[in-house]
Amino acid sequence: MAEENKLDILSSSDQQEKPKGNKLHFSLIHNYPQKNAEILSSQYGFNVFLAGLLLMFAWAIHAVGITDRDLLSYLITLMLIQLVWMLWYIFGSYSQRRSIIEKDTDAGARWLRCGITLFAVITLILDSFKIGYYIGYSECLSITEGIFPVTHTIHTLLQVYFLWFHAKDIIQSFKTLERFGLIHAVFTNLLLWANGILTESKHQLNEHKERLITLGFPNITMDLHTPECNCTSSVCSIFSQGIYYLYPFTIEYHILASTMLYVLWKNIGRTVKHNQQQKIHFKFHGITAGTVMGLLVLTTTIGVLVVYLIQIGRSKSKSEMALTMFYLYAITVLTLMCTAAIIGLIIYRLENKSLDDSESPAKKLDSDLLVGSSCGSWLISWGSILAIISAETHPGYAWYNLPYSILVIIEKYIQNLFIIECIHRKEDENDDRTVERIFSVSNRSTLSLTPSYEVFNETVTICSEFPYMSNSNLGEGCVDKKNQENNNCLRLTPSNISIHACRSAKLNKKRRILKNIAAFLFLCNISLWIPPAFGCRPQYDNGLEEVVFGFEPWITVVNLAMPFSIFYRMHSASSLFEVYCKT
Amino acid sequence: MAEENKLDILSSSDQQEKPKGNKLHFSLIHNYPQKNAEILSSQYGFNVFLAGLLLMFAWAIHAVGITDRDLLSYLITLMLIQLVWMLWYIFGSYSQRRSIIEKDTDAGARWLRCGITLFAVITLILDSFKIGYYIGYSECLSITEGIFPVTHTIHTLLQVYFLWFHAKDIIQSFKTLERFGLIHAVFTNLLLWANGILTESKHQLNEHKERLITLGFPNITMDLHTPECNCTSSVCSIFSQGIYYLYPFTIEYHILASTMLYVLWKNIGRTVKHNQQQKIHFKFHGITAGTVMGLLVLTTTIGVLVVYLIQIGRSKSKSEMALTMFYLYAITVLTLMCTAAIIGLIIYRLENKSLDDSESPAKKLDSDLLVGSSCGSWLISWGSILAIISAETHPGYAWYNLPYSILVIIEKYIQNLFIIECIHRKEDENDDRTVERIFSVSNRSTLSLTPSYEVFNETVTICSEFPYMSNSNLGEGCVDKKNQENNNCLRLTPSNISIHACRSAKLNKKRRILKNIAAFLFLCNISLWIPPAFGCRPQYDNGLEEVVFGFEPWITVVNLAMPFSIFYRMHSASSLFEVYCKT
Repeated sequence: MAEENKLDILSSSDQQEKPKGNKLHFSLIHNYPQKNAEILSSQYGFNVFLAGLLLMFAWAIHAVGITDRDLLSYLITLMLIQLVWMLWYIFGSYSQRRSIIEKDTDAGARWLRCGITLFAVITLILDSFKIGYYIGYSECLSITEGIFPVTHTIHTLLQVYFLWFHAKDIIQSFKTLERFGLIHAVFTNLLLWANGILTESKHQLNEHKERLITLGFPNITMDLHTPECNCTSSVCSIFSQGIYYLYPFTIEYHILASTMLYVLWKNIGRTVKHNQQQKIHFKFHGITAGTVMGLLVLTTTIGVLVVYLIQIGRSKSKSEMALTMFYLYAITVLTLMCTAAIIGLIIYRLENKSLDDSESPAKKLDSDLLVGSSCGSWLISWGSILAIISAETHPGYAWYNLPYSILVIIEKYIQNLFIIECIHRKEDENDDRTVERIFSVSNRSTLSLTPSYEVFNETVTICSEFPYMSNSNLGEGCVDKKNQENNNCLRLTPSNISIHACRSAKLNKKRRILKNIAAFLFLCNISLWIPPAFGCRPQYDNGLEEVVFGFEPWITVVNLAMPFSIFYRMHSASSLFEVYCKT
Repeated sequence: MAEENKLDILSSSDQQEKPKGNKLHFSLIHNYPQKNAEILSSQYGFNVFLAGLLLMFAWAIHAVGITDRDLLSYLITLMLIQLVWMLWYIFGSYSQRRSIIEKDTDAGARWLRCGITLFAVITLILDSFKIGYYIGYSECLSITEGIFPVTHTIHTLLQVYFLWFHAKDIIQSFKTLERFGLIHAVFTNLLLWANGILTESKHQLNEHKERLITLGFPNITMDLHTPECNCTSSVCSIFSQGIYYLYPFTIEYHILASTMLYVLWKNIGRTVKHNQQQKIHFKFHGITAGTVMGLLVLTTTIGVLVVYLIQIGRSKSKSEMALTMFYLYAITVLTLMCTAAIIGLIIYRLENKSLDDSESPAKKLDSDLLVGSSCGSWLISWGSILAIISAETHPGYAWYNLPYSILVIIEKYIQNLFIIECIHRKEDENDDRTVERIFSVSNRSTLSLTPSYEVFNETVTICSEFPYMSNSNLGEGCVDKKNQENNNCLRLTPSNISIHACRSAKLNKKRRILKNIAAFLFLCNISLWIPPAFGCRPQYDNGLEEVVFGFEPWITVVNLAMPFSIFYRMHSASSLFEVYCKT
């Protein structure tokens, strides 16, 4: 924001020289301060969002006179406006006036764009399912239910194109219209996200109610928005069933898109230091332990999820068994994750690096989203803890819920610290990186002579006096002989370079541990994303909280908080990927 | 944040020189990066807050096994921890190590501290009422209901002292413990605020239900938390009635305290440019028009409120009359406010000042709170608009609700732009202020010769050639004779100083209009704070939204959004006071 205002000062002083004739009109329209353009557009965005949220709320509670058609028409209108704006922007950016565009290297990383493309492809499949569903039930569904997936398909295609090629833009000209377009896009995606969550929550709730009916609970009414005619095609049930397996991906797609668009919006008018960050490359190298453990967790999770979904709601004893299994498994995984993150934090303290002082909207958003979305699952966990403390009777498995809930809180707390510190750590290019490059050369392939090998030839020669450095326990000797460290190195080679090599070998070992931790946590977070996204809701099924808080209030709390909890896992996984690449 | 990290770099480089013996322990404990200390403490704060919110939620919905006592014990514990921390801080700040403390001139303005003291005094009265109420019902109330107001009294006294003397502190040493203490204080106040809102909402809802029962609606159950014994004293009913008239002030007290504490927390470890802002002085001078109109609005509002509260719920026709009166009155006031704010914005555009580039947490929080709290009333307004559009039958007064709701949205939108732009405007000390000082001297008392009069003697002599400048229409001549401006001034006095005087007289006139607008809007916002804070809820009473959304959902929406809407008015009033002083 500070830089933005500096720009304003420049532009306003430029404008002093313009002819005076048209001055009033000019100063009213073109000389609008950018700080205010930000407020102007964000207020517009909030209003669009709040109106949409209320429409959804009204639809969800079956308000009088508000139908599916109203909600979909509103969303279609928003998407069409965004489409027009994106086309205007894309064509405008090929013309002369926006030829020199600055780029924010922090924003729109390649892996983020790849991720969003993957989710977008699944979203397109979902849209085609919806179109098929509409065709099947076209007799009794309103035309908007057909127009919506078609518009959404076009919207998705153009938006992915837009994000792929323009996510790093730092817009400097015609800022006001760009701000409005971008904030409109941000909130359109947020509304589509909320709409996805609403549909998904209703579906999950109905499944839960079905289970309760099976278990013999009376007085439960289903909340269905089903069409009132029969399907003309034979594949309707496949479509309607399949849709719910694809929703989690669409939900992630929209939230990711809105965060990328938000960073674009925050970047408008900003001035960045060039070459602020080197390119991040993904190298799968020396992280066997972390990856193997992570993959083990991932496969076990899928197994646990399948067993859970088969067993739950069949009978009382089978449900209890499924819940006990889930809690014990989750407690194990969360304990491992806590341990890994704590080790990571201790290594950070030992490395004693300073933090980056550049204020990047992308980094700030990353931290805010991590802490903000953690609040969702913290809320649910505190609810569980409160329920366990104040409940009068406890079934056996309920006690597993207590350590589980506490661990969920602690694990997110520590993991956030681990991720945020790494995101803000500075790259020490002078001492560590260069030497690491040498080692990674001698470590990976001792045969190839890269330029860096030749340049630092002397160093490598010296290091070859330590035979253990060429295997994977590189640098261990230095760590084990910590007390004799300086003597040793100096005795072997009188030059200072040797000490440097020793130190950086130690650093390299720390870095490898950190990489393993990041890889392990990355896979664990992906694992923990799967159960809630695909309908594993022990918060519904264990029944304890429902008894204490009542069915409706607890369901409301879970439905409001769960989307943030699910988003947290996906977002932390993407952040951990960045941590891995940066380490 | 940027400055904070710069500090970290300095401190970490300092620590490189410390002895190596105790290095591990030292780097783990003392060398904790401040960016992480921020995340560490904010995560702690969120958890304290979420646990408290859930306790309140559980109490409000009469969850099994959760009583009033649990909630109050939790709040008492939090207050006691904050008390201990504040004592530690206050005693610590008198000792040697914190003798040189930097101050943030943006934070904790004098009028803000005066405001909080006023609210705190009313809070103390409320506490004494609560103690009286407890003594009256002591037979059947738990001891916590007596301990709570006593603790709250001590907490209020010490907190006001703390804010009065330490609100501007920029803490530089022992940052981690200070961060934890401050964030604990922020969220303790937020919880006390939420608790106040909850009690107040329940009370309002019960009053609304009583009215509905009077109007003959069946099937309405009251949600009462009343004691189960008779009062031993005769003044119990005065206490229990009086408490609800004092709640709005307590609510404001806690939210103000938490914002001031939050600014303190954000300021930890920051470096500020010294003398960044001159002192703001309040001068009641030349703002007759704005003040008179504002006071007119204020008195009329109180009259309208009294009539409304007497008429509403008596009978159907009287309720309709009260609603029509309220809407017509509110539409008039909001239209006037919109007009005033638009004129203010046009003057800003004509003045073409650049915006301040310093990033101050206090200023940023001000803008964020304005836009954030607006969302509360925007949500309610969009609900009303949606209800009017989709309702099947409309009573006559319902149509007044539509322009009212639209104007509520527009007025907040424009007013926010007006306030935020002014907060961020730069002071042009070189050209405007100095000359204004001369004029204000000649304007206010032509007899006293202040130093500035003597210094700029020449200017004043020249200006005395314009006889109209000595009366209150100062500078009007320059504006009226706009076309001949340059000729006139140059003919009278060949020196450039004369043009300058003319220009600044025009500027002075603009400034006076802005001051009038700020004064008017300030009083209007105070006026619009009163009706919702003291139980005027047309959103409940008009019945239209309740029909469309259903009783429970609409009541929930209003109860969630209304506190923010009420807070908005108080916060915008305080911001407009700042705008007035700055202009």
